[in-house]
Amino acid sequence: MTQYLEQVLLTPGPTPIEPHAQKALGFAMRGHMDPEVFAVNARVQANLRTLYGTDANAFTCLLAGTGSLGMEAGFANLLEPQDKVLICANGSFGYRMAEMSERLGANVTVVKAPIGQAIQLEDVKTALEADAFKLVAVVHGETSTGVLNPAIEVAQLAKSYGSLVTVDAVTTAGMMPYHMTEWGIDYAYTGSQKCLSAPPGVAPVAFSSSAIKAVENRTSKVPLWYADLEGLQAYWDRREYHHTVPVQLHYALDAALTAALEEGLPTRAKRVQEVGGAALAALETIGFTAFVERPEHRLPTVLAVRLPEYIQDVPVRSSLREHNVIITGGLGETAGKIWRLGLMGESARPAIYHKFFAALEKVLNVKGLITAFDQQLGVSTR
Amino acid sequence: MTQYLEQVLLTPGPTPIEPHAQKALGFAMRGHMDPEVFAVNARVQANLRTLYGTDANAFTCLLAGTGSLGMEAGFANLLEPQDKVLICANGSFGYRMAEMSERLGANVTVVKAPIGQAIQLEDVKTALEADAFKLVAVVHGETSTGVLNPAIEVAQLAKSYGSLVTVDAVTTAGMMPYHMTEWGIDYAYTGSQKCLSAPPGVAPVAFSSSAIKAVENRTSKVPLWYADLEGLQAYWDRREYHHTVPVQLHYALDAALTAALEEGLPTRAKRVQEVGGAALAALETIGFTAFVERPEHRLPTVLAVRLPEYIQDVPVRSSLREHNVIITGGLGETAGKIWRLGLMGESARPAIYHKFFAALEKVLNVKGLITAFDQQLGVSTR
Repeated sequence: MTQYLEQVLLTPGPTPIEPHAQKALGFAMRGHMDPEVFAVNARVQANLRTLYGTDANAFTCLLAGTGSLGMEAGFANLLEPQDKVLICANGSFGYRMAEMSERLGANVTVVKAPIGQAIQLEDVKTALEADAFKLVAVVHGETSTGVLNPAIEVAQLAKSYGSLVTVDAVTTAGMMPYHMTEWGIDYAYTGSQKCLSAPPGVAPVAFSSSAIKAVENRTSKVPLWYADLEGLQAYWDRREYHHTVPVQLHYALDAALTAALEEGLPTRAKRVQEVGGAALAALETIGFTAFVERPEHRLPTVLAVRLPEYIQDVPVRSSLREHNVIITGGLGETAGKIWRLGLMGESARPAIYHKFFAALEKVLNVKGLITAFDQQLGVSTR
Repeated sequence: MTQYLEQVLLTPGPTPIEPHAQKALGFAMRGHMDPEVFAVNARVQANLRTLYGTDANAFTCLLAGTGSLGMEAGFANLLEPQDKVLICANGSFGYRMAEMSERLGANVTVVKAPIGQAIQLEDVKTALEADAFKLVAVVHGETSTGVLNPAIEVAQLAKSYGSLVTVDAVTTAGMMPYHMTEWGIDYAYTGSQKCLSAPPGVAPVAFSSSAIKAVENRTSKVPLWYADLEGLQAYWDRREYHHTVPVQLHYALDAALTAALEEGLPTRAKRVQEVGGAALAALETIGFTAFVERPEHRLPTVLAVRLPEYIQDVPVRSSLREHNVIITGGLGETAGKIWRLGLMGESARPAIYHKFFAALEKVLNVKGLITAFDQQLGVSTR
């Protein structure tokens, strides 16, 4: 029987579970139509408005699935066959957006940037000048490469051309203040196990009032019944049965979300910058370099570092795993060349990075990583 | 703050959580690509073959969603636009199947039976004679009315006409031996919170080798990326990343499924018959009658009873709720007229029914329900 020892999870999701969320997982079972569950749901909806920075006319809820269902639900609700959609893609998740839109029969145009580089606003503008798009979609933080895209600027630009805007907020919402309404974002989603450090299995989403109107004005039904906006509203707003929801995951997400808002989004944004900055500084002392060249394009919640030549990717990560420290390598063309260190939610804690550096010192037989990390952290938090 | 007292859950799902599953929910977090999670997944896949009675060429897995996603995934994978599908509908879930198929652009024919009655084989045969269908779908146990449809006979009939067959096994698989391959079923699904008494949020599904071939032979891509068979196989069989899975729910489902198979499916089928029979006998002593007239059409796992005239539905159920006993009323035309008592998984225990009858005796100010239940149970288990 598996022992399930505690691991030091430094992957770009899932993250170590937030303690209140862990406790909430064990709360007594309730039916999905129970008044106590509806009370939890109402609190989650209100807190998600704060998390995403929406006005009172937006609709927020949890989808009963992981972040990829959040991605797919947006396209399934907002696009009809032949609708024109502009997708910004510079990594796995941008290309996944294009794949999903194509499967739904949409007319897809892709604005690309090379792996490791951010989407260029000028390229988006050129595309918007050339054609009219019902929807523009962009991944805020590309988990696969650690690149921060200018999602807010893309949203504002797309809005000025009359498009709806979807933003993948998987690695950003929850670790920085979000202002969906102000920024002109119409649909945003994340996964519970990312910046909120809740167990995986629910996707917090938000639809703006414009997005809601767009769904209401469809000429065809939403092809995906399971995440159809009307069905979601029936359950979350009118307390009618649509489908069973994962009640334990609602308890846990509710607890984690409450804890995040109590800490405060600006405080969390500061925490991730400080811990991430100190981690990069410590790694630079032994030859690692930031994978994303321009600091303003670096995603604060996923630190992507290029390995020095003397370090072999797989053997070192395997050795770290023997110390119960789990980190992630690259994908596709970055495989073997980079590591990706999570800084979402409970990952962005000095204690977690101390464990990582202690293990790395042993595995590489080097010294001074913890000291360098602490020194930098002392500087930045002084 | 909600206290989350333990409730006596006698709804037709969710069910009281199986104790091993409850404990497993608290196991330490792992990433979805962790070797220990893949070991859990492999055990789940093997045990699902046993649960559903499939051959070695079938594909089994958990979908990251509830039972309705299981329903939708079947149609999304097996149907292409304009494909002809025959749906058997005599309750909410049969009509939901038709709704989902229509949204996917399929050409839908519905064989109906009145609420409270089973689908007639002759009606299915007439439809199969009149047209050629790629897929025939039937709900085995209609949770909404407590009707057991002749799903096995429908499957065998449909097979003889060359159709693929989907069976909704939500209220049956896990409480009776299943023989998917032998019966000619190509796709089956259930929800974790039903007969297995695991927390809600994953849907155990099985695709036959014919279903897999049908998906491979599609001319269009599966519109639903999230539950696309090829993506599921990538993760579950080849251990490649597709999307994050709800790891804690995998732990819990694994524990509940293991416990169910250790008890044995024939034993569970006997248990549900005995507890359900005794519960009906006890209720009959105070004027309740079985809602489904013909005993052979009664779903063993959802006891639907017609209320005697002297009992008012909502006030009595509200009073039971004050005793922490939760039961469910009717839907649509049966609202106010029937109660539906769950007998799935951990619901089908004498101790649970003792609590229900103790509360009901107090609320109605009657005596003898527990005695009548125990006497009947003594007879049937002697």
